[in-house]
Amino acid sequence: MISLNDIKELSVSNPAKIIFFIMDGLGGLPHPETGKTELETARTPNLDRLAKHGSCGLSTPVSPGITPGSAPSHLGLFGYDPITYSIGRGVLEAVGINFDLKPGDVAARGNFCQVDDRGLIADRRAGRLSTEKNMELTGKMREIKLPGVELFVLPVKEHRFVVVFRGPGLGAEINDTDPQHEGLPPRDPVAVASSSEKTANLAKDFVSQAGRILAPYSPANMVLLRGFSELPHFPSMQDIFKIKPAVVALYPMYKGLAKLIGMTELACKDNIKDEIRAVKDNYSKHDFFFIHFKDTDEAGEDGDFDRKVKKIELADSLIPQILDLKPDVLVVTGDHSTPATYKGHSWHPVPFLLYSSWCRWDNLEKFGERTCLRGSLGIFSSLNAMPEAMAHAGKFARYGA
Amino acid sequence: MISLNDIKELSVSNPAKIIFFIMDGLGGLPHPETGKTELETARTPNLDRLAKHGSCGLSTPVSPGITPGSAPSHLGLFGYDPITYSIGRGVLEAVGINFDLKPGDVAARGNFCQVDDRGLIADRRAGRLSTEKNMELTGKMREIKLPGVELFVLPVKEHRFVVVFRGPGLGAEINDTDPQHEGLPPRDPVAVASSSEKTANLAKDFVSQAGRILAPYSPANMVLLRGFSELPHFPSMQDIFKIKPAVVALYPMYKGLAKLIGMTELACKDNIKDEIRAVKDNYSKHDFFFIHFKDTDEAGEDGDFDRKVKKIELADSLIPQILDLKPDVLVVTGDHSTPATYKGHSWHPVPFLLYSSWCRWDNLEKFGERTCLRGSLGIFSSLNAMPEAMAHAGKFARYGA
Repeated sequence: MISLNDIKELSVSNPAKIIFFIMDGLGGLPHPETGKTELETARTPNLDRLAKHGSCGLSTPVSPGITPGSAPSHLGLFGYDPITYSIGRGVLEAVGINFDLKPGDVAARGNFCQVDDRGLIADRRAGRLSTEKNMELTGKMREIKLPGVELFVLPVKEHRFVVVFRGPGLGAEINDTDPQHEGLPPRDPVAVASSSEKTANLAKDFVSQAGRILAPYSPANMVLLRGFSELPHFPSMQDIFKIKPAVVALYPMYKGLAKLIGMTELACKDNIKDEIRAVKDNYSKHDFFFIHFKDTDEAGEDGDFDRKVKKIELADSLIPQILDLKPDVLVVTGDHSTPATYKGHSWHPVPFLLYSSWCRWDNLEKFGERTCLRGSLGIFSSLNAMPEAMAHAGKFARYGA
Repeated sequence: MISLNDIKELSVSNPAKIIFFIMDGLGGLPHPETGKTELETARTPNLDRLAKHGSCGLSTPVSPGITPGSAPSHLGLFGYDPITYSIGRGVLEAVGINFDLKPGDVAARGNFCQVDDRGLIADRRAGRLSTEKNMELTGKMREIKLPGVELFVLPVKEHRFVVVFRGPGLGAEINDTDPQHEGLPPRDPVAVASSSEKTANLAKDFVSQAGRILAPYSPANMVLLRGFSELPHFPSMQDIFKIKPAVVALYPMYKGLAKLIGMTELACKDNIKDEIRAVKDNYSKHDFFFIHFKDTDEAGEDGDFDRKVKKIELADSLIPQILDLKPDVLVVTGDHSTPATYKGHSWHPVPFLLYSSWCRWDNLEKFGERTCLRGSLGIFSSLNAMPEAMAHAGKFARYGA
């Protein structure tokens, strides 16, 4: 595999436009009655036309057999090996709620939990309390004062919140306090590097104050912290690929992740048509667009085969609008599979389609998991997605003489 | 490729059962008259049914073009990169005859050979003497005494034996004494690290005493030693994959190898039906079973195309008994190819079949080398076999948030 440093040497800026249309969780599994996956079931005349004159294949997100979370699966598509470029859970949650994390901040993911009168964990998620209750309780925790640092306590959803420590000399090399099993006491936050000792003590102080504040609110009477982390230092997509990248997404997590690697956020309202309009409105200002379509993943997670089919058909119906923009390269794929029968992210490779003037026509009759197996890109690491797109956009110089 | 350390982090214990049914040397080459391989020729209705609703592909044992021995080819299937995890030949032979090798023991593979009156090697295998003669001569060599160490001299088969040195302060960094060519004298065992000098001197003493004892027994009048080695320190499959693995095999080499990576040996008598019965009898005690079927490889080595076909058909006929156990994941493949036309191990990728509830049906009409080319697993490194099986058994947590 070629390194990002090599890619940086090869990348050249030109006016060609690349669009990545990512249907989250696109890949599926056969419906037990029809034997067809969601994508194979969907009527997708526009994608099918592209599959005829484009290049198709199946993209493996992290490594065969590995089920990725959304962060590693997207990082791979944008050329960042998720095994090397990892993002801590605390940072991801903070970024996911659009919190403006600064360099040097330490973020941790928090769970409300329930402890019994011996201090042992009875429920690691405090009965998945409501988001409203979460907002009330995180509000109370904002009263906590810690010496020498600013503290942010922010609700996420249900039992999940984020805590951010801001101040000089902090470090994130701290163990999780969540023992991952009920019947055990929460662990103390312990520094695994001396540079993080101060922060570990602050975290301990935070947990102890939180316990006192939450005592009357059983089942949410204690907190667990994990994924202490700082903003990663990733090279930007501008720097590596010499492009001006933009993201249009409805969920903060995807916007946040994209911004971490240098994408500019394009404002949009609340549906995929708005997302495409945002690309249109900003088409002259950028040469790389990441359009994130969440609905396919949600339907898959819900186990709703038919809804996933419908959402794929909706996405297909928007392809002509995207083609009207005349991108030099259009990539349509998913970040990972979320089969409706499996009701969750899975490890199965993801259908992938690249359309440009420089494709060896695959002549596939349909865009689908099984047809893509016969596509010219084969089964490949998602890390190849960006190099393929860059090549087809004429944005790579020749390697060697 | 994801590392074993990463895999260890992802692995979770659950009750799901995985069975690896390994037909040794499964892969073949076309019969010159029919154009079909052994597997393509065999009637395999049960495997064909699995190929329809399972995931197929071709597994590359070590690296394309590389013909593996049995140890590296099996290590790869169990997730251990054979390029990193190598086992010395001495250890492998000792383990192969079920010798209870201890940490610190140094084992070497021995050959009886014939030297002429000038001390030059006339026959590196002493005319492939009979195993009976071997047992007689290794019996005589047991009279050899070496200062400060225990010595074990054990027959293997024909001209092959094992010698094991046991005692404090031994080392295995010693050159082979076999010059690999006839007409040359045996080399002295020479230490290539100072920590092995004592052992090299003991080995030299052993060779010289063996020469005196064997002098009257031409053509087996001298010994050659190679593959000086100690027990390797491999992480166990329990530790990496959080499984309770078991092996059922008829040949000591496979049992020994499997035990080196933590598998428990299940007792069985002398044929593949007994092997499957042993799995059945111990089904509740383990969640990973490696069933080794040797006959396919032997027929291939003998160049007996028809016998290999028959042995594959025998294996196919046992698939229903294995399915009756209701494994969550069944993998049927070989460790390498042994084409009957080639009469030996070869480098060709090996047909691979994975059957579980979470497969994208490949809809293949037959399990065979050429159909597997159209399977959803593609042509892949055998190192992916375990991750794929673990994923399909729900034994991997999600990678990243």
